[in-house]
Order: sequence, then C-alpha cells, then structure tokens
Amino acid sequence: MSRFPNEAGKRFDHAYYAGKHLPLVMERLKGSGMLRYEVDKGLAGGGPGAPAAFVAACHLYFNAAADFQKGIGAHGTEIMADIPNYTDISPQIQISEIVVG
Amino acid sequence: MSRFPNEAGKRFDHAYYAGKHLPLVMERLKGSGMLRYEVDKGLAGGGPGAPAAFVAACHLYFNAAADFQKGIGAHGTEIMADIPNYTDISPQIQISEIVVG
Repeated sequence: MSRFPNEAGKRFDHAYYAGKHLPLVMERLKGSGMLRYEVDKGLAGGGPGAPAAFVAACHLYFNAAADFQKGIGAHGTEIMADIPNYTDISPQIQISEIVVG
Repeated sequence: MSRFPNEAGKRFDHAYYAGKHLPLVMERLKGSGMLRYEVDKGLAGGGPGAPAAFVAACHLYFNAAADFQKGIGAHGTEIMADIPNYTDISPQIQISEIVVG
C-alpha cells in the first residue's frame, strides 16, 4: 500500500489519484498479477475533531509480494513519474500480508 | 481503520488479533451495519531492507461512517478492553471514504 501523510501546506488531487493514477497503475501491473485496488480518502481521526493522519491511501492487491516486485521493477519509473501530477507529499510504501482468522 | 505503529520493544499477537479480536468486533458491530473486515500483517517497507511502518492494521467496512459511530458507541468499551490481550501498542484510528475513479 501507499499512504500519504496529512501535512500542512501540501496538495493532493483526489480526483486525479482515483481517476487517472490508479487506473494507470492497474493497466501497467495487471500483467504481473495485480488483482484489484482500493483507494481511501482520509476523512477524520479517531478522537472528536481529530484530523486524519493520512490524506489518502491505496491498496494494490496481489497473490504474492513477488508479483508486485516484478511489476514495479518493470513499470515503477513511469508510475513514480506520475506522482507530481497529483501530490507533493512523499508516499509511505508498505508490503503487507492479508491474514484471516 | 486501525494501524499499529511498528515500535521497538512492543508486542503484537497476530494470531489473537486475526483469530479472536476481529471476529469479536464483527460480531458486535454487524448489527450496526459492519459489512466485512480485512486484517493486514506488515511485512516490509518500500526500500530495500526497510521495515514496515505498521506491524498490523485492520479495515472495518461500513456503508456510512455514521454506522461505525453508532456501533462503536454501543460496543466500544468492550472492544477497547480487549486490546491489551494482543498488544501494548496504541492504535491510530482513521475514518476514510473508499473512492473510485
């Protein structure tokens, strides 16, 4: 997943992110096994009136981390180059395993 | 969602979290409109050898934030009281909207 910290004075174009950037990512990575994606827009934190810690996040779903690594190795340069088109916030990247009880 | 920062010297019981805590949350909140949940176990960060920023996270899916607020208002005390059974990390709570292009 990628998370964008909610930092003062920064910009984030949610419409571009959901409508242009993620479809580009899906188009480029589906050949490496990307299954689907989810885009989250931060609304609020946990306490009353608390701001969201992250203005936006996305989750890219693959069957295996190796599939993501293969896809990002082939298309990462183009995908990273699109970031300035929607934000000047540095994304935090994390690889997670989806676990079930 | 709840995120648990990856902090040195802290404990996190993934088996309890996915196998006991989240099923309890689902059982208590389904009557308020909780649809499903996802549990993520942090594996790695973005750079080579970088650690995951969050050791674990969960996403609770509702049709509306108000449904979550209603459910947590009724059952939040019991749910929060279960936290020490799996971790001593303070969770970060965030409400997000799922957006599509």
